Amino acid sequence: MKKIKIGIVGYGNVGKAAELLIGQNSDMELKGIFTRRPASIITKNPVAIYNTNLIGKQDFDIDVMLMCGGSKEDLYGKDNEHIEDGQVIQVAKHFNTVDTFDTHKRIPECFEQLDEICRMFNTLCLMSTAWDPGILSLMRVLFESCLPNGKQYTFWGEGVSQGHSDAARRVVGVKDARSYTIPIESSIEAVRKGDEPSFIPRTMHERVVYVVPEEDANEIAIMQDIVTMPDYFADYDTEVIFISEEEMKKCHSEMPHGGFVLRHGKTGDGNSHLMEFSLKLDNNPEFAASIMLANARAVHELNNGGKCGAITILDIPIGYFSPKSAKELRGTML
Amino acid sequence: MKKIKIGIVGYGNVGKAAELLIGQNSDMELKGIFTRRPASIITKNPVAIYNTNLIGKQDFDIDVMLMCGGSKEDLYGKDNEHIEDGQVIQVAKHFNTVDTFDTHKRIPECFEQLDEICRMFNTLCLMSTAWDPGILSLMRVLFESCLPNGKQYTFWGEGVSQGHSDAARRVVGVKDARSYTIPIESSIEAVRKGDEPSFIPRTMHERVVYVVPEEDANEIAIMQDIVTMPDYFADYDTEVIFISEEEMKKCHSEMPHGGFVLRHGKTGDGNSHLMEFSLKLDNNPEFAASIMLANARAVHELNNGGKCGAITILDIPIGYFSPKSAKELRGTML
Repeated sequence: MKKIKIGIVGYGNVGKAAELLIGQNSDMELKGIFTRRPASIITKNPVAIYNTNLIGKQDFDIDVMLMCGGSKEDLYGKDNEHIEDGQVIQVAKHFNTVDTFDTHKRIPECFEQLDEICRMFNTLCLMSTAWDPGILSLMRVLFESCLPNGKQYTFWGEGVSQGHSDAARRVVGVKDARSYTIPIESSIEAVRKGDEPSFIPRTMHERVVYVVPEEDANEIAIMQDIVTMPDYFADYDTEVIFISEEEMKKCHSEMPHGGFVLRHGKTGDGNSHLMEFSLKLDNNPEFAASIMLANARAVHELNNGGKCGAITILDIPIGYFSPKSAKELRGTML
Repeated sequence: MKKIKIGIVGYGNVGKAAELLIGQNSDMELKGIFTRRPASIITKNPVAIYNTNLIGKQDFDIDVMLMCGGSKEDLYGKDNEHIEDGQVIQVAKHFNTVDTFDTHKRIPECFEQLDEICRMFNTLCLMSTAWDPGILSLMRVLFESCLPNGKQYTFWGEGVSQGHSDAARRVVGVKDARSYTIPIESSIEAVRKGDEPSFIPRTMHERVVYVVPEEDANEIAIMQDIVTMPDYFADYDTEVIFISEEEMKKCHSEMPHGGFVLRHGKTGDGNSHLMEFSLKLDNNPEFAASIMLANARAVHELNNGGKCGAITILDIPIGYFSPKSAKELRGTML
């Protein structure tokens, strides 16, 4: 069997996880890691390391590039202001790509620009995949299509929110912070019971922020600044817990996360139905990388079949995610 | 907007449900119901009723036929012995179809024959959809692809099993019977905990059979015959409960069902992840019909785009199930 040749662009948490997981997929091989700081990285396995700026200047035998940079800075340009300067558009001129861009409201515009480039260069690029956007998006569309007359809910957690942790870290007197998103169990139960409740942010999730204060910091001021911070914490019941640097390292260095999509709907003369999907993840970046690899398999096969352009996970038949043939899936999994 | 023109072949539970639910999908219209006994049926809405044997002999303006007959007798021939005599192959010569064929082990052979016919007549036929095979199959393939190193489980219920009810009804002295499949909660919990347990049928599901005995029947003999029946009940802990005809009618005429797909897997250096999907259905045939309609939408669009042949739910991008455009889905659901 000819293996799918994978490249990794960006060697942060997701890039490192992807490197580790390619070995779990016997139909894939890692051909190179591309980073802006090739001299400084140490990989777990022997693999070629290249400077990202060689892409387009040198030939690489790679089928799909996993774009593992950040949404805010790397993938579609800094703050997505100059999409064309982002890594994805640049790499899409030479390779098929899979990216995890998760700034939901900027997806449509980035998609249009990416699609234009892909069609020009005959590449196929899957944008905004992993688990949300990604698997949870699949569920939202599937559930709504199966139960058009109903109400849908997405809950996140329990898990670490990087954006909220970063926001808390910017508060004066905070040395380190880690913010957890916790779905409110009684609200999930109300959905399961079929009440079709209406929620506000405060009744769906709560937040717990672990803070390491700087020496002599005013803890009451820190707490006030965090719980009243607009956009991030003001709309939620937020608990702030002060801990030592040692405890932060010992108890909060893992990257767990999770999520739920639920839809309650009615058919016919009032019969109720519930569809529910949930994820419980020990390690968010590793699960994200694992999805990217399944998606890369589909991108490779579809591009081999002549497809080019920008796509999302909603445009791919699920069977393409599997290394098994359509015939084998019909015989064993249907 | 041009509506998708739907025909229904077979007017049993699923056909009746489909008739009811087309009204919940504003992009569809019902153009006719086809049955072998047109004179005897009374529909809920004013709709044209035709004899099934007119298909191919008369012109009908229909985009997709929902094949709502039974798997054992109708869809692919009696006991699937002469697949070519079944309704699906006959209708596929003239129309796109969606069917719910659920005899898992016969799917590959029926698929091959259907595919040949479809390619000959330029139709697109989706076989074996609803929720299992169907939505649960989608989940099995998706979950395995996202967590290749793991273990997967499908539980069914709590719900009525038609096949087991029929089997119990064939026992001497049984006037009526209704068999429920009940997933064993502690086993589902063990999967959720990440134990990756191994099960036998008895440790995954139990069965409860409600029986209306004939007058003067030997209840002990009935119970013995049911709980020891090979293939159906012998491999499970089965409880038999005798009730009156009135109670059967009052408490057991609904058609609830449900199911779970769970996969626990590991990534990297032993991080655990759990993916879980579940369904809880008040009315099994109505939910099945609702999925068929979402699938019919995809079949119509794909066939319009030139695709023909036999397909399964694993071959369709999820976005095609929705009445929303790809652009709208990217902007609102991703």
